[in-house]
Amino acid sequence: MRIGVLTGGGDCPGLNAVIRAAVRKGTKEYGHEFVGFRYGWRGPIEGITQPLDWDVVEGILDQGGTILHSSRTNPYKIEGGVEAIKKNMAALGVDALIAIGGEDTLGVATKLTADGVNCVGVPKTIDNDLSGTDYTFGFDTAVNIATEAIDRLWTTADSHDRCIVVEIMGRHAGWMTLHAGIAGGANVVLIPEVAFDIEKVANFVKERKEAGKATIVAVSEGAHAETGMVLKDGEVDAFGHVKLGGVGDWVAAEIKERAEIETRAIILGHLQRGGTPTAFDRVLATRLGLEAADAVNEGDFGKMMALQGTNVVRIPIHEGTDVLKTVPVERYADAEVFFGV
Amino acid sequence: MRIGVLTGGGDCPGLNAVIRAAVRKGTKEYGHEFVGFRYGWRGPIEGITQPLDWDVVEGILDQGGTILHSSRTNPYKIEGGVEAIKKNMAALGVDALIAIGGEDTLGVATKLTADGVNCVGVPKTIDNDLSGTDYTFGFDTAVNIATEAIDRLWTTADSHDRCIVVEIMGRHAGWMTLHAGIAGGANVVLIPEVAFDIEKVANFVKERKEAGKATIVAVSEGAHAETGMVLKDGEVDAFGHVKLGGVGDWVAAEIKERAEIETRAIILGHLQRGGTPTAFDRVLATRLGLEAADAVNEGDFGKMMALQGTNVVRIPIHEGTDVLKTVPVERYADAEVFFGV
Amino acid sequence: MRIGVLTGGGDCPGLNAVIRAAVRKGTKEYGHEFVGFRYGWRGPIEGITQPLDWDVVEGILDQGGTILHSSRTNPYKIEGGVEAIKKNMAALGVDALIAIGGEDTLGVATKLTADGVNCVGVPKTIDNDLSGTDYTFGFDTAVNIATEAIDRLWTTADSHDRCIVVEIMGRHAGWMTLHAGIAGGANVVLIPEVAFDIEKVANFVKERKEAGKATIVAVSEGAHAETGMVLKDGEVDAFGHVKLGGVGDWVAAEIKERAEIETRAIILGHLQRGGTPTAFDRVLATRLGLEAADAVNEGDFGKMMALQGTNVVRIPIHEGTDVLKTVPVERYADAEVFFGV
Amino acid sequence: MRIGVLTGGGDCPGLNAVIRAAVRKGTKEYGHEFVGFRYGWRGPIEGITQPLDWDVVEGILDQGGTILHSSRTNPYKIEGGVEAIKKNMAALGVDALIAIGGEDTLGVATKLTADGVNCVGVPKTIDNDLSGTDYTFGFDTAVNIATEAIDRLWTTADSHDRCIVVEIMGRHAGWMTLHAGIAGGANVVLIPEVAFDIEKVANFVKERKEAGKATIVAVSEGAHAETGMVLKDGEVDAFGHVKLGGVGDWVAAEIKERAEIETRAIILGHLQRGGTPTAFDRVLATRLGLEAADAVNEGDFGKMMALQGTNVVRIPIHEGTDVLKTVPVERYADAEVFFGV
Repeated sequence: MRIGVLTGGGDCPGLNAVIRAAVRKGTKEYGHEFVGFRYGWRGPIEGITQPLDWDVVEGILDQGGTILHSSRTNPYKIEGGVEAIKKNMAALGVDALIAIGGEDTLGVATKLTADGVNCVGVPKTIDNDLSGTDYTFGFDTAVNIATEAIDRLWTTADSHDRCIVVEIMGRHAGWMTLHAGIAGGANVVLIPEVAFDIEKVANFVKERKEAGKATIVAVSEGAHAETGMVLKDGEVDAFGHVKLGGVGDWVAAEIKERAEIETRAIILGHLQRGGTPTAFDRVLATRLGLEAADAVNEGDFGKMMALQGTNVVRIPIHEGTDVLKTVPVERYADAEVFFGV
Repeated sequence: MRIGVLTGGGDCPGLNAVIRAAVRKGTKEYGHEFVGFRYGWRGPIEGITQPLDWDVVEGILDQGGTILHSSRTNPYKIEGGVEAIKKNMAALGVDALIAIGGEDTLGVATKLTADGVNCVGVPKTIDNDLSGTDYTFGFDTAVNIATEAIDRLWTTADSHDRCIVVEIMGRHAGWMTLHAGIAGGANVVLIPEVAFDIEKVANFVKERKEAGKATIVAVSEGAHAETGMVLKDGEVDAFGHVKLGGVGDWVAAEIKERAEIETRAIILGHLQRGGTPTAFDRVLATRLGLEAADAVNEGDFGKMMALQGTNVVRIPIHEGTDVLKTVPVERYADAEVFFGV
Repeated sequence: MRIGVLTGGGDCPGLNAVIRAAVRKGTKEYGHEFVGFRYGWRGPIEGITQPLDWDVVEGILDQGGTILHSSRTNPYKIEGGVEAIKKNMAALGVDALIAIGGEDTLGVATKLTADGVNCVGVPKTIDNDLSGTDYTFGFDTAVNIATEAIDRLWTTADSHDRCIVVEIMGRHAGWMTLHAGIAGGANVVLIPEVAFDIEKVANFVKERKEAGKATIVAVSEGAHAETGMVLKDGEVDAFGHVKLGGVGDWVAAEIKERAEIETRAIILGHLQRGGTPTAFDRVLATRLGLEAADAVNEGDFGKMMALQGTNVVRIPIHEGTDVLKTVPVERYADAEVFFGV
Repeated sequence: MRIGVLTGGGDCPGLNAVIRAAVRKGTKEYGHEFVGFRYGWRGPIEGITQPLDWDVVEGILDQGGTILHSSRTNPYKIEGGVEAIKKNMAALGVDALIAIGGEDTLGVATKLTADGVNCVGVPKTIDNDLSGTDYTFGFDTAVNIATEAIDRLWTTADSHDRCIVVEIMGRHAGWMTLHAGIAGGANVVLIPEVAFDIEKVANFVKERKEAGKATIVAVSEGAHAETGMVLKDGEVDAFGHVKLGGVGDWVAAEIKERAEIETRAIILGHLQRGGTPTAFDRVLATRLGLEAADAVNEGDFGKMMALQGTNVVRIPIHEGTDVLKTVPVERYADAEVFFGV
């Protein structure tokens, strides 16, 4: 059996660990061969490959990113894309694909399976917003980076009696902000799932200032105020939502004015997705890669590998992507306990 | 309501996060008061206390260890220990105890509850070997430290074409070694749950040497060879088990002789339990602390806070301590895939 | 003898280590007493103090920031500021001041010494741009943080075949960008001391793209293009210099257009100045603090502690602040060797 | 011109950065070619080479260890070793060698230069005990690792009111222990240069215990007591010196008995030499590599690259190796200020 592997969407710590584990198990236990497709779905569409055996992957466990490179190419948005994949797979003797990616990449895998291409999926997103799996690899690394950033920002906030607003990735789901906010001891945590009242936020900061305490506000890039939020370059929609970007700057500016305290915004951005994966992410990614090799060997296509409790299981891919997994109210309440003085 | 908090057994990253969260929720949401008992169960036995309010705990989230200090004192092994606890609690007006600790500390909490003392338990062990909870805080931090150590040892092993044996904590359960071994890319992982054949281990190393590859062996301090293992200062029991300590040295010496390769043993020891907790452990510890405050408020005594999937739940304390949670065969198989060349 | 200590200007990893060392040596070896002045020069002007003895400072070695808090208050810009300092020192029985700070704080210390106030200075700036000392503490920590950031950004740049522009602190001196750029393997390094040609920069990126290589550009916030640089919210002055801020964004936008490659800008900002100091900074800060205690004891006022080679020496404070220490051409040449493919 | 590069002795973070910089400058600016000799001096003796150009070295800046591998082979201890080197260099068309290593490797380079082989040397030792250079790369990384270890051990020491003895590398020079001891806030620092009085050490610990404080003792593996030190497997020589190894264990055992406090010894060992280099070491190593390429180009053989103040200079190799650079009394005094309560 000959198996193609590809990685799609944004890079994520742990991608290489998945590739390495799948190649190891497939070659050693099942005698499979592997071929790497470069640049996500662009690889099988255009037939761009790279060798993929144990010698290539043995040393990549601790490397962030993906040795297969990535892209956001979607074969269903390209004329003849699906046919090209089938043709290239046939030409290369590739029987099945392991697609590692997020909502978009896995969505394609679901459709391709229906269209007769043997696919299994491995979920990947630092946002942790795929369903059916307790966590996705990359999330733990990203949360640790953001937490370490908050730890550092505390020393500046304290030394200068300031408020610092730290903007954390997460356009639609606040998982990263929630976890890093709790872990970093943020005094306010703002996420896309719950519209915030900027007056209330500023009051928390003011009360802390009056108590002689600095403040850290953790805010998702996709958080929005109940009313009044107008971003520098953005527009407010009918629901008070604004175009993404600049939330941290807006919140900082409002706090500065309302609470009369020196306030700075820090945007973590891409710093959160790079670097070596944490042990948690390496173990999770390795387990998913091993399971993917098993699934392919068993011909159990159309499935996504998932972590449920301490077990790695297989679920239909669409169950992972049908519904965005957002932060439930009771989890947000954990952070709210720490709001204010 | 007035609540006492104590930490027992070995120190563990995340203890302070539990204390902080319980104090925050109890004071802010329920109007409870808190008092810290120092030195584990010695505190309530001897009436040694320290103030415990938000001002004391606000800044301790990122600190390893425990501000309450710890001990291995057991009131059931001290004449009049239990009576002393009751008397001191009454004198101090303490209605209930939050006991944060491992098997021993929680075992006492179970008995005390039966003896009429209001206790809730929060599980703590870097070994991850308590039942009823998917993970215990401290484990993730310890695994990350051990993984980082293995990452570093690889550069020395590679540069000198050596074998390095790294001995990792875990007398009865191999969780830390399994996770750090997988995360660090160890070529052999040896745990207490599965007796190993030193000849087979040495052969893996030999094959790798012949392929021009260095080797890392991760071994739990409680791992044992099927036969032949005699530690410097130890004895072999009827089952081939030996007195603990020195396993890494023995494995290194055997590999050196059998595979004819320069081999060094590194003992991580206490380096694994100190330092600031990872984000995972800070979040987990915080959630357990919040839940403990809720349990006390509801009078739900005799319960241990536990992580199951993504939920924090309460189970009878004894369910956490009755059976040691060891590594199942199928999880060990994940590591075995990577054994050898 | 009774000695006041204050910290002025931006916070910097190592400030607490200086305070701790000075207090230790002064109290233990010379029998001096210490008092902390809070908020930089505002402390002695307004008489705002905090206790400062060994019990207070023993545990602060690894803490970033300053337990004395800081400000940018300048007694020479406040009516009666200098007199207030003299009056408060007399009232508190304070004989001398240890002023820890950068250009502004030390400039005040020079003037105060001339005006009859006993001062010694300890140089502090993460920018490393004070003269007479090989390095200032905080610089090494900041460079490590920026280097680690570049390490992480490489994985994203590589995975997506992108160019990433990382903007590093340094308005007038490029030390941080030079060191982090070299240490992080940046392919172009742009500093305030050398005006750059954006066309040349874009060509480097283009050549690398054509060779299948991603690119990292490290740019100081104070770097400027020879011509053509117009910042979003800025103006170009007669020399082609622009108002500070936004350099990274401009460089990224130009590269994107000229080299036709996806390019992102990351602003490190305050992330560079917080957190625990590196060992280098802890040792340097400790040595400077010890020397400051000696200088005060000997009545050697008007001096700044400085690192020259491996020795800590004392120089007139103004020698540290008279001339900004910028990156010499031959040091920049070290970075240029690595420019391009 | 064709240049051979080799790395000898123990691995050290920064070796790859030297290789990378020398190759870059030599190929790009002087049109030189490079060849890697594997396994230290064994490489040129046995003619074991590997390709060495920019494509090979571009990505190795952040990797610890050495891609050229290392050994302790000495051509002057091998029959015909020197002749073999000459013969192999001639056969491969290699005009000059860049030898990166410590005392032994550089000692050979000095002799070979006298014997007509064109050599330049780059000093390497995590021990920092070579003369003529302020620092050697690898030292800063090792000190940071040891400091981080001490930071972690503090939390365990504090939580359990214990004494922890941490044994740090350094058989003949105490630089690493001095710097990590100061940076980690150790309460006693013991180095090979100054014989210690174990009674006095134990008294420091006792006083701290009575003051309710835990203690960290940092001890070099080569430190020795004035009298009475007998290691488990060692012997005391006429000067009270003992065979190396086990010093930490002995000190811990003595403290435990004399100060009546639970005391543990932790041996850092090889953990100190692996992993990615710090920014300081990457910059230093890069500068030394650039200078070595210049020296070879100029035919300035027999020279060692050295850091003096902020400058990289060239000195005769033997000046680096003639005298071991040990810790002077006045630097040790910096640590002594912090001894005791």
